[in-house]
Amino acid sequence: MSAPRIVALSGGIGGAKLSLGLYRVLPPGTLTVIVNTGDDFDHLGLRICPDIDTTLYTLAGLANTQLGWGRCDESWAFMEALAALGGETWFRLGDKDLALHLERTRRLKGGETLSAFVADVARRFGIHAAIVPMTDDPVRTRVGTVHGELDFQDYFVRRRCEPQVTALRFEGAARAQPAPAARAALADPSLEAIIVCPSNPYLSVDPILAVPGIVEALRQSAAPVIAVTPLVGGRAVKGPTAKIMAELGVPLSAATIAGHYGELLDGFVLDATDAALRGQFSCALRVTDSVMVTLADRERLAREVLTFARELRPQAAARA
Amino acid sequence: MSAPRIVALSGGIGGAKLSLGLYRVLPPGTLTVIVNTGDDFDHLGLRICPDIDTTLYTLAGLANTQLGWGRCDESWAFMEALAALGGETWFRLGDKDLALHLERTRRLKGGETLSAFVADVARRFGIHAAIVPMTDDPVRTRVGTVHGELDFQDYFVRRRCEPQVTALRFEGAARAQPAPAARAALADPSLEAIIVCPSNPYLSVDPILAVPGIVEALRQSAAPVIAVTPLVGGRAVKGPTAKIMAELGVPLSAATIAGHYGELLDGFVLDATDAALRGQFSCALRVTDSVMVTLADRERLAREVLTFARELRPQAAARA
Repeated sequence: MSAPRIVALSGGIGGAKLSLGLYRVLPPGTLTVIVNTGDDFDHLGLRICPDIDTTLYTLAGLANTQLGWGRCDESWAFMEALAALGGETWFRLGDKDLALHLERTRRLKGGETLSAFVADVARRFGIHAAIVPMTDDPVRTRVGTVHGELDFQDYFVRRRCEPQVTALRFEGAARAQPAPAARAALADPSLEAIIVCPSNPYLSVDPILAVPGIVEALRQSAAPVIAVTPLVGGRAVKGPTAKIMAELGVPLSAATIAGHYGELLDGFVLDATDAALRGQFSCALRVTDSVMVTLADRERLAREVLTFARELRPQAAARA
Repeated sequence: MSAPRIVALSGGIGGAKLSLGLYRVLPPGTLTVIVNTGDDFDHLGLRICPDIDTTLYTLAGLANTQLGWGRCDESWAFMEALAALGGETWFRLGDKDLALHLERTRRLKGGETLSAFVADVARRFGIHAAIVPMTDDPVRTRVGTVHGELDFQDYFVRRRCEPQVTALRFEGAARAQPAPAARAALADPSLEAIIVCPSNPYLSVDPILAVPGIVEALRQSAAPVIAVTPLVGGRAVKGPTAKIMAELGVPLSAATIAGHYGELLDGFVLDATDAALRGQFSCALRVTDSVMVTLADRERLAREVLTFARELRPQAAARA
């Protein structure tokens, strides 16, 4: 029997936590993480892919767990010298992190796809999982706010998510194609689960789902699609999910998230804190502790999600 | 009486040594260093200007005197991370140094001239001298070798000046214009000396002289033009000058250098080691110790060159 093949859809930090859990409990070579690229942007002449890089660093054991972004054992000599030159410093780039951005920019300009570059970096970092951008085409998340439409990183980093969000748009998504490895992973007949990581549904997962063909691939797969809640007790474990939901005028509840994904889901992983919401879900539910603080938390949650997926396989296969 | 105005024509290390000496002995704001940009190149997507940067770092007191290039107190985290990614590492870029290249690349792409960028950096570094690129137009030194024509940095850094040189060409020079500040400094009626620094005549000074208008400006100036020997006892203090002269089949002598500049020169500063060559020069001579090891050496040589220039003013004014 071949090893199970698992796909995770992921944004940055929260998604990478569960991806790491899955990576550690699954046999090598069986996990594909399809990562949001809507946050990608060009800064100081460099192509920066925050969610891809967070995933790479996390699975390689190189993530900066203190900062929650960037590389561990990082230094900031470049940034300090740039500040002395009057350069833009609102997006902080560590000396080591910079190498990834520079090398990526150079190779993309040389005609290499983002997929190919990321696969090469993953290999060099010794990662035995496929880390795949949702698309090799440019998709850019634009945040409609009461101050007008903003580039994602302008909203997210420079303005620290302060402007009130009125709408989200994924520029370029309509013309984008799924990255070949993303398409292939989702169409693999041996696929056993598609896991929507506890990332921000609006900012991190929706861009992936906006790439034409991804939603269809999820619908057509015989593998169960399971989302893990990013909300616990009506609050986001990390990031602006709750703030954005309030601004978009939707109830601050895990049930809203499940409803947002709608019929795509075969199952939803709800935090035990929210057990009282049980009655509000139309898909299968697994109630557990979803907060991942330690590495053991990540592994335990990953195992529970995989067990849940195994249980849902017959019904998902019947649905597809 | 206004403070004397001095122009130095300079390449990298050797030229920057004398420029620093001049900078330290002259009143603030009276020195203009016109710097070779033929060594400039694009690497890893960055515009790198080695001679400009050496001059900036040297006059700012930020030069790495151990390495002989780059910045002091430098770190190499970027380079190590780049190596781990399989990137190109033959041209070493320190973390701090990188900030200058990135910021320059960004601002040049935004339409700023190299002159304006360098002037701004000099100001931020607290340098009270004008550091001026010979031109804002692209000029690229190409090194003809027995292995074919090479980009300058490919020859100079990657191949460590090993290939035998057969010819030198300054691509783009014919269409280049002197940078406005270079033209203005050379045309200033209060100019008191034009000093050709002890840089490599073939690699570092000839590109400056190849920019249309520079030679004419030197000829028309009433200020004496004085070259300082880069050769001592038939050997270059630094770099491949002697090796290139041998390969080009010219005598390894300071007299060859003076002959190379020819009628441009009003005076030549010869090292005391080479005093026996006295009879071979057709311009005025000053014989002194030209080797600059200490900061005091740089200042003493600068003072001697300035004194020499004062003595030559009447004859230069008559010539112009």
